[in-house]
Amino acid sequence: MQLDDGSVMSTAAGDHHGIRRAIATVCLSGMLEDKLDAAAAAGFDGVEIFEPDLIASSSTPAEVRMRCADLGLSIELYQPFRDFDTALPDELAANLRRAEHKFDVMEELGADTVLVCSSVDATALDDTARIADQFHVLAERAGRRGFRVAYEALAWGRHVNTWSQSWDVVRLGDHPSLGLCLDSFHVLSRTPQPDAIAAIAHLPGEKIFFLQLADAPLMRMDVLQWSRHHRLFPGQGDFDLPLFVDHILTAGYSGPLSLEVFNDIFRQSAPVHTAVDALRSLLVLEEYVARRSPATGEKFGLTSPPRVPSLSGHAFVELSAGAGAAAEVAGALTSFGFTQTGTHRTGRTQLWQQGDARILLNAAADAAADASEITSLGFDSDGKERLAARAATFLATPLPGDDSGMSVTAPDSTVLHFCDAGDDPAWMVPYGPVAAAGEAPGEPVRAATGLTRIDHVALTQPFDYFDEAALFYRAVLGLDPASDTEFAAPFGLVRGRALSDPSGRVRIALQRTLLRRGEWAPNVPDPQHVAFATDDILATARALQERGAPLLTVSDNYYEDLDARFGLDPGLIDAMREFGILYDREKGGEFYHLYTSVQGSRVFFEVVQRIGSYAGYGSANSAVRMTAQRSARAHRSRRAMPAV
Amino acid sequence: MQLDDGSVMSTAAGDHHGIRRAIATVCLSGMLEDKLDAAAAAGFDGVEIFEPDLIASSSTPAEVRMRCADLGLSIELYQPFRDFDTALPDELAANLRRAEHKFDVMEELGADTVLVCSSVDATALDDTARIADQFHVLAERAGRRGFRVAYEALAWGRHVNTWSQSWDVVRLGDHPSLGLCLDSFHVLSRTPQPDAIAAIAHLPGEKIFFLQLADAPLMRMDVLQWSRHHRLFPGQGDFDLPLFVDHILTAGYSGPLSLEVFNDIFRQSAPVHTAVDALRSLLVLEEYVARRSPATGEKFGLTSPPRVPSLSGHAFVELSAGAGAAAEVAGALTSFGFTQTGTHRTGRTQLWQQGDARILLNAAADAAADASEITSLGFDSDGKERLAARAATFLATPLPGDDSGMSVTAPDSTVLHFCDAGDDPAWMVPYGPVAAAGEAPGEPVRAATGLTRIDHVALTQPFDYFDEAALFYRAVLGLDPASDTEFAAPFGLVRGRALSDPSGRVRIALQRTLLRRGEWAPNVPDPQHVAFATDDILATARALQERGAPLLTVSDNYYEDLDARFGLDPGLIDAMREFGILYDREKGGEFYHLYTSVQGSRVFFEVVQRIGSYAGYGSANSAVRMTAQRSARAHRSRRAMPAV
Repeated sequence: MQLDDGSVMSTAAGDHHGIRRAIATVCLSGMLEDKLDAAAAAGFDGVEIFEPDLIASSSTPAEVRMRCADLGLSIELYQPFRDFDTALPDELAANLRRAEHKFDVMEELGADTVLVCSSVDATALDDTARIADQFHVLAERAGRRGFRVAYEALAWGRHVNTWSQSWDVVRLGDHPSLGLCLDSFHVLSRTPQPDAIAAIAHLPGEKIFFLQLADAPLMRMDVLQWSRHHRLFPGQGDFDLPLFVDHILTAGYSGPLSLEVFNDIFRQSAPVHTAVDALRSLLVLEEYVARRSPATGEKFGLTSPPRVPSLSGHAFVELSAGAGAAAEVAGALTSFGFTQTGTHRTGRTQLWQQGDARILLNAAADAAADASEITSLGFDSDGKERLAARAATFLATPLPGDDSGMSVTAPDSTVLHFCDAGDDPAWMVPYGPVAAAGEAPGEPVRAATGLTRIDHVALTQPFDYFDEAALFYRAVLGLDPASDTEFAAPFGLVRGRALSDPSGRVRIALQRTLLRRGEWAPNVPDPQHVAFATDDILATARALQERGAPLLTVSDNYYEDLDARFGLDPGLIDAMREFGILYDREKGGEFYHLYTSVQGSRVFFEVVQRIGSYAGYGSANSAVRMTAQRSARAHRSRRAMPAV
Repeated sequence: MQLDDGSVMSTAAGDHHGIRRAIATVCLSGMLEDKLDAAAAAGFDGVEIFEPDLIASSSTPAEVRMRCADLGLSIELYQPFRDFDTALPDELAANLRRAEHKFDVMEELGADTVLVCSSVDATALDDTARIADQFHVLAERAGRRGFRVAYEALAWGRHVNTWSQSWDVVRLGDHPSLGLCLDSFHVLSRTPQPDAIAAIAHLPGEKIFFLQLADAPLMRMDVLQWSRHHRLFPGQGDFDLPLFVDHILTAGYSGPLSLEVFNDIFRQSAPVHTAVDALRSLLVLEEYVARRSPATGEKFGLTSPPRVPSLSGHAFVELSAGAGAAAEVAGALTSFGFTQTGTHRTGRTQLWQQGDARILLNAAADAAADASEITSLGFDSDGKERLAARAATFLATPLPGDDSGMSVTAPDSTVLHFCDAGDDPAWMVPYGPVAAAGEAPGEPVRAATGLTRIDHVALTQPFDYFDEAALFYRAVLGLDPASDTEFAAPFGLVRGRALSDPSGRVRIALQRTLLRRGEWAPNVPDPQHVAFATDDILATARALQERGAPLLTVSDNYYEDLDARFGLDPGLIDAMREFGILYDREKGGEFYHLYTSVQGSRVFFEVVQRIGSYAGYGSANSAVRMTAQRSARAHRSRRAMPAV
């Protein structure tokens, strides 16, 4: 498929002929059989078999080999073999005996490479030459049986814990069946400086037997705990993996790109979903490597989808609501100065507009009366075909029944629509000639309360999909993640990550709770909101109040504290208090914003005014807002109850 | 109430006249009003008001004051005031203005002490004398209004981050309204060595204005993150808090013992439940301090319940089961060589016995047919009244309808029964004369398969109550926690903590998942099991197999790996494989154990043989066991489905 920027739509996973893509079974939840099925279903070429998965399995190694063959999966690695080198001669004999047992297993499995990690045992050798000697013996035994030993420095190995130490062992061990396994976590957690790993590019490529990839957030903690619990798929953490992979491919490594991610959440998540997330992360990584080094990209057949087009804004946000909630939302939109300017020809969806802010309100006949939900997002760009191509490359699920590729689902099932920018976008056609009270069809609607456009959309993500979602939006829409936030909400900690396009015209704020909710959860489940921009928050607030908008009442204590902290003009504080306007400040900018109460089960609206270079979302005020919304709900439910 | 060891049953919380017990609102989930209600309901004397809780609240400070008065809660502290000292004169003026605002709030609240923590700001002073000067000014202003400033060194303060530095500031600041706040986390996270904090005992007690208590597991990580997410209530972590508190009381501190615990789970948990857990932790701490220093205990009126009696074993384990599951369990018990030796006079509960192992099987008429559950545990001791007194002291909920105090519920709702050791325990009376096929009533039942007694009971805890449960069993039964374990189960990481009495006759193994389960959860929900001891696992296993016990089949791969790792005798490995016997080894001991499949929805049985000093539970084999149980369930549900 030839695209408008001259690029060719890359082949998606499954039918490519470039570098092999693999995943360690330890990344996925379930029994070994579940894991293999998931890896194959997502489109991986191969797997690493994590030994404990095999040991627990009722399938024999030969049966696993057959199952992998049936699924089209190669077995790229058997791992790990631990604590090989030793200062005790008896122990060495036992370890060699143990290795021969594992070679038997590998033979049955049809795996030709075993990962041996540096010893953490008290008896481990502290003598590179002697370690190398012992590995020479091991490699000789492996080689006789046609196997290769890939030696890896664990970041917490007793004496060998850097990649250069492991390279010394391999170099001195000097055996054709002995090579390196490089794991990005172990390398980058110990030497995060880009120049410190540049030497990898000069290794003899044929001595790099295996490459394991994991990302991780930068954390100051025990490296073993960090590795065991907090690894992430590439692009979801803070490591510069494109640089790392580029070095290794430059060295001439030609094995698979293989993911080995220990992560508490993935261990509990549906394995097919995780496997798709995993493969997408590899494809995104390939794109980054190919952009760094086009020749390498070409040589290894790395994924290289068309570049992201320029986004010009949120085309619309679609809400779906049950009968009661729909009336509530329509009332709120009216009070916000929106006008219903069209109705979808099916009769089920209304188009509401003010300025460049557009809301589709969809009557969900089969939903609970009070249900409300953001169901889809429309994005204006100057190249929707390129967005569609990127979405297909990055494994977005097409909307059932849509063949155009212009509508796909995000990890949380929100539908994304890729739209034409301009005056008569195709998506608007079914809404008929757009008309507004007192205005000619097709004319821009009068900005009744000063709202100009959608500033951002905030979506609570399913707990398991938070990191995935951020990478998904980055991959498909080219949004850049801002720094993470964390705040204490009344019912638990909440983590936020906002993304925006380079121009700030499209902004999506993702959030999730720090832990999955338990039984004590009087909060709004999975809240979502749409924020509209204004250039004059006070004028907008006054207009909204006059129109009877369901504005949130903010506590007096908040304004007392604002006064204490910022010493704002008392008249301004009084006005802010009157309308429930919140305030935030950062170097170079200020932020004023106000909220409605929750409309229906989980949707609310925000009005924001950004001043100067303020790029945040006022998360410092989130706990205050959530408490106020909780009070408003409690108040409402008290009113709704019969008097006793 | 006079007890058999001459001690007097201490008054429970709520009506005591000793040291005051307080909790910071930040420990509890919900809105400020929820938190105050919870603190009062649990029996605390006072609270610290955490500023963000007040700021978000729609209650004015005066209303909060009234509410606390109504609830019988004193407001012991307003906290925190941040980043006071500064190198910038303008900033100092702004900070003093900010402080006056907060003094206004305190006046309305009726709080007389404000916590000011050491600055983390870039403009913070790096000059103790100048900091002291600025604090002198602040204290002078506070004093004029009748307030006190309690200065606390945050462990991550920019320049002041140890308690001795904060003491220097207070000493040089030299103002009657300036004193120290000592927070056990900040002190012990920086100086964990017991002797390093001994100097605290020599501080002038009147200069210690406030004492905040938190425990924490020892973790190697960024101290701010450690503090923010992982604090625990006293006795639930690794700090020596009895020593710390003893030092401070020795110094002459006379303020409240106040908990300030930032914890991700507590922030999401039902606040009343958390508050009870919190108060219990303080009571346990008081007991430890009073045991260390009886005079201090007396002087401050610390809780001092009777000592734990000697436990002589598990009297019984009671299972409740729906109709189908009850038949399954009865079948399993029969195949295990148990005999039904009695029936409760209500007809609803059967007594099954073998050796000293006793199971009560309770038909749950209203439960689902396949439901099975461990509902109560009986404990033999030489002083059940003392256990009852301890349970009451430590806030155990009495069993409804039981006035004896001999039956209480644990945090997970399991009922604990305190029983007489000996031949004719009272609990057995309603089961009539105990009879066994072919044996005279009252005679010990023949040990049909070699099972001698209950070795341990394993209970999956509700996610929120894991740490609480461990402290509860420690407090009430005097069980000592062994080290924690963590293992990778097929569907996620699992954390375990086993407790036992000093003699090893009562053992309870608690576990929970590392994260709350999400939607992908094909595991057995909250599994529980009873482990029986044998002195000859092979003979027992053979007898069980002959009797058709539902033994778990363990994978061949497991035995291949056993061979590789331990080089056990091949004949022994063959026998183990035949019966599904698992193996573990530690210095000084070995462990052989086997399992049944899951009987009903969540209960299974284990047989264990401990050799030498082995004190663990074979958690290294848990993933293998769980995978085998999962396979057995899948196999069973396939068989149960109609052929297609």
